[in-house]
Amino acid sequence: MQARTVAVVGGTGQQGRGIAQRLARAGAAVIVGSRDPARAAATVAMWPNLTGPIRSATYGDAIAAADVVVLTVPFDTLADLLARHRGDFKSGALVVDVTVPMIFAGGTARLVDVPDGSATEYVKARLPEQVRLAAAFKTLPAPLLNDVEQSLDCDEFVCGDSTEAREGAVSLVQMLKGLRAIDVGPLSRARAIEHATLLAIGINRRHKIHHARFRVVGL
Amino acid sequence: MQARTVAVVGGTGQQGRGIAQRLARAGAAVIVGSRDPARAAATVAMWPNLTGPIRSATYGDAIAAADVVVLTVPFDTLADLLARHRGDFKSGALVVDVTVPMIFAGGTARLVDVPDGSATEYVKARLPEQVRLAAAFKTLPAPLLNDVEQSLDCDEFVCGDSTEAREGAVSLVQMLKGLRAIDVGPLSRARAIEHATLLAIGINRRHKIHHARFRVVGL
Repeated sequence: MQARTVAVVGGTGQQGRGIAQRLARAGAAVIVGSRDPARAAATVAMWPNLTGPIRSATYGDAIAAADVVVLTVPFDTLADLLARHRGDFKSGALVVDVTVPMIFAGGTARLVDVPDGSATEYVKARLPEQVRLAAAFKTLPAPLLNDVEQSLDCDEFVCGDSTEAREGAVSLVQMLKGLRAIDVGPLSRARAIEHATLLAIGINRRHKIHHARFRVVGL
Repeated sequence: MQARTVAVVGGTGQQGRGIAQRLARAGAAVIVGSRDPARAAATVAMWPNLTGPIRSATYGDAIAAADVVVLTVPFDTLADLLARHRGDFKSGALVVDVTVPMIFAGGTARLVDVPDGSATEYVKARLPEQVRLAAAFKTLPAPLLNDVEQSLDCDEFVCGDSTEAREGAVSLVQMLKGLRAIDVGPLSRARAIEHATLLAIGINRRHKIHHARFRVVGL
């Protein structure tokens, strides 16, 4: 995986910047895909202790150059993004969906209903056929992810549309310090992973903490 | 909780027998609710190292005598059970729903759609008003639960329709050796817990193990 180019689309956002920095610290070649690449370049230039090459680009340029495309934009911007850039993906690219469609109503977080079943299956329906897809990085708390000196010290669930997609996502996840990837099977498991994010948020709110996350016991 | 009487309805079944034994080992007064109380009595008589009083009874008698009713019957038998015994619950009783409606199709496990949102909300709609409800014990692997000498060494998610329900379920969960209860909030979280069960089953199948379960990190 180290030799592959990873685009983090939305790579200066709340989820993306932790993932982009942690991948670059682990030696990956990272492209931060941004609506405003000049501003993203200024942000990226301030990130310390990166060992992999990093640069910023537009969404389209980042996607076109990447072997692995990590989607960290808000869920409600995905349809537009994928409609615009459907033709930009490299054939055989791996897309890793990080999105969790959440709303807060009446003081309670809940998942948005997605007719496709999950955010990841929603992405699947909008990708070209020759692109592989996995879900990963969905349950990690953003404040911890962005505190890039901290080891994550937990597990992260991965599912995918093929063995190749799952293996690619597993190796990407395991580049992050202290993170173990758990392959949970086919893409139809994505909704269960999104529900795990909801559980983590519920635990954070109820217990007034910020870093609730998961470890699988017995594996 | 030790002083309260706990009915485990379906207490000789796959989930129930581990819960019933572990509660009785921890000193709870347990009634095993069974369709065949005589046969259940013979089973219960063989369980070693119980410290709490234990007996068997019909579903109706068990429910009527209990301060806490743990529902461990198969999901598809719940509607009939609750229709028959709706009038038997003590006022103020705590019901703990353990069911997870799962089907295996095409080699893949998935949750059954429940119009109420979750199995626990399905139970809620069929209980009398003066009964409180929580979800617990949903994600524990049955083979480990039934190996009653083994410490569970994991966390279990609890949600409920009131503070009282959650506190009651938390104290019940924590009677089991090596089990920490994690309050995840309102009853609307039950589906997320059921999805966690699906994740655990997916992990078991993919990794050819039997005891996958969860620990919350950061709490």
